Amino acid sequence: MQITGTTRVFMVLGDPVSQVQAPQLFNPLFERHGVDAVLVPAQVPRERCRAFCGEVLAAGNIDGLWLTIPHKPLLLPLLDRLDRHAALAQAVNAVRRNADGSLEGALFDGTGFAQALRQFGFEARGRRALLVGVGGAGAAIAAALLDEGLDLLALADLGERARELAHALAPHAAGTRVEAAGIDPAGFDLVINATPLGLKPDDPPAVDPARLDAGATVVDILMKPAGTSLLRACAGRGIRAFPGFEMLVQQVPDYLDFFGLHDAARAVEADLSPVRALLHAK
Amino acid sequence: MQITGTTRVFMVLGDPVSQVQAPQLFNPLFERHGVDAVLVPAQVPRERCRAFCGEVLAAGNIDGLWLTIPHKPLLLPLLDRLDRHAALAQAVNAVRRNADGSLEGALFDGTGFAQALRQFGFEARGRRALLVGVGGAGAAIAAALLDEGLDLLALADLGERARELAHALAPHAAGTRVEAAGIDPAGFDLVINATPLGLKPDDPPAVDPARLDAGATVVDILMKPAGTSLLRACAGRGIRAFPGFEMLVQQVPDYLDFFGLHDAARAVEADLSPVRALLHAK
Repeated sequence: MQITGTTRVFMVLGDPVSQVQAPQLFNPLFERHGVDAVLVPAQVPRERCRAFCGEVLAAGNIDGLWLTIPHKPLLLPLLDRLDRHAALAQAVNAVRRNADGSLEGALFDGTGFAQALRQFGFEARGRRALLVGVGGAGAAIAAALLDEGLDLLALADLGERARELAHALAPHAAGTRVEAAGIDPAGFDLVINATPLGLKPDDPPAVDPARLDAGATVVDILMKPAGTSLLRACAGRGIRAFPGFEMLVQQVPDYLDFFGLHDAARAVEADLSPVRALLHAK
Repeated sequence: MQITGTTRVFMVLGDPVSQVQAPQLFNPLFERHGVDAVLVPAQVPRERCRAFCGEVLAAGNIDGLWLTIPHKPLLLPLLDRLDRHAALAQAVNAVRRNADGSLEGALFDGTGFAQALRQFGFEARGRRALLVGVGGAGAAIAAALLDEGLDLLALADLGERARELAHALAPHAAGTRVEAAGIDPAGFDLVINATPLGLKPDDPPAVDPARLDAGATVVDILMKPAGTSLLRACAGRGIRAFPGFEMLVQQVPDYLDFFGLHDAARAVEADLSPVRALLHAK
């Protein structure tokens, strides 16, 4: 990668930022596909998020931002346009400056999840899903699942969050019943953990594995190389279960498309194996 | 170069920015000397310079800025500290955030020039110098030449600029007479072009080459691969004349030192030939 004065610049914002994987993933993809661009990290404190983004996106060659914790929901008041999932989940993964100077945000976590489901061979139409955890990533997944033709989308979380999100999403859910629920996974075809439970070694599983239907599909979106307690329990029972890895893989062409790098997006989409190799190398 | 979430970020600001050479120079040096850092360009409009710098330097991993046209003089009101040359010339090449949060600026154009003179074997002590053009780079060179023990530093420019700078510098010039002058180079041991005259192919030389002393040393700080009309005229008369190249080379360790990369600075200073090779490759 040769950075010059003509190189387009992207930034990934977080606080902390040392854990981000986007630079190690996208910079090699830029190089492989002949895109003169670079993605660099920026550790931006929560309270400076809007001012920082407003200034850097006014620079002529800084074309967009990746956003991670805690910035995903903070930028909304700054944005002129949101895609449908961002508007529903009230969070963005990425922000770009359009040619007319307007700022536009998009959310890919949910579409990445839905694409990963297809990759797993899971047919969502007419099925019953339980989503545990409706924070940032959970809300994104819930918004995207509205488009997948589920019969029931049940949302579980602490306090009123699940009920509030169900209330907000229900008017946009064509044929899908959206409702708040408890964390009992019995009777569901698809069970998703979008809570942080499982990040620490001694965390209990987010749902009781013994209560899972034998034919259920389980996705735990946490990224843990050794797998979470939930994934291990599923393996023990012979239940199909997947980590969050493929959800990240499937979003990569969406980011490239969003930033106008359509040729690179098509090339990456046609063969995602280099993306998987780059993410596995982390 | 592998950019990760732990990589320190530097930016070079200009408007335009496509012509900057700092990324092609410093990124390979970072890699060669094991510095986990990256330098990227930022095209920042003049009127947003201060807001942009204030925001990006508040980010936890953005450690400093390189400044080029038109930003060198604009940042001064934002800075808590200046080195002596920056204060005298009222311009900065670089800004860093110190550990206490204060912003500090420094100017290296002049020290680079003075070091280049030594590299050329020119002994400044007791000699007479004519500096034509006292804009950004010229003022930096004038400030640095105050430390070189010249007998006379004559400044030439349009309007009142040379007189004003001479007036500002005179109190700081220990044994050197500083005065405004015309552009006749006769009688000077050192003649410096710091005007843009020579950038365009049909520009006349900034001074009349026929009036140069046969033993004079001439430096034209413009970077033109084919040489300027002044340099070519000097070559025709057998007068020692140098382009601005070495002035850039000699500044490189100063930038690294300023940004706290002392080991890299010492290694680069010990052998500047890779720097010359990288700059020649442009």
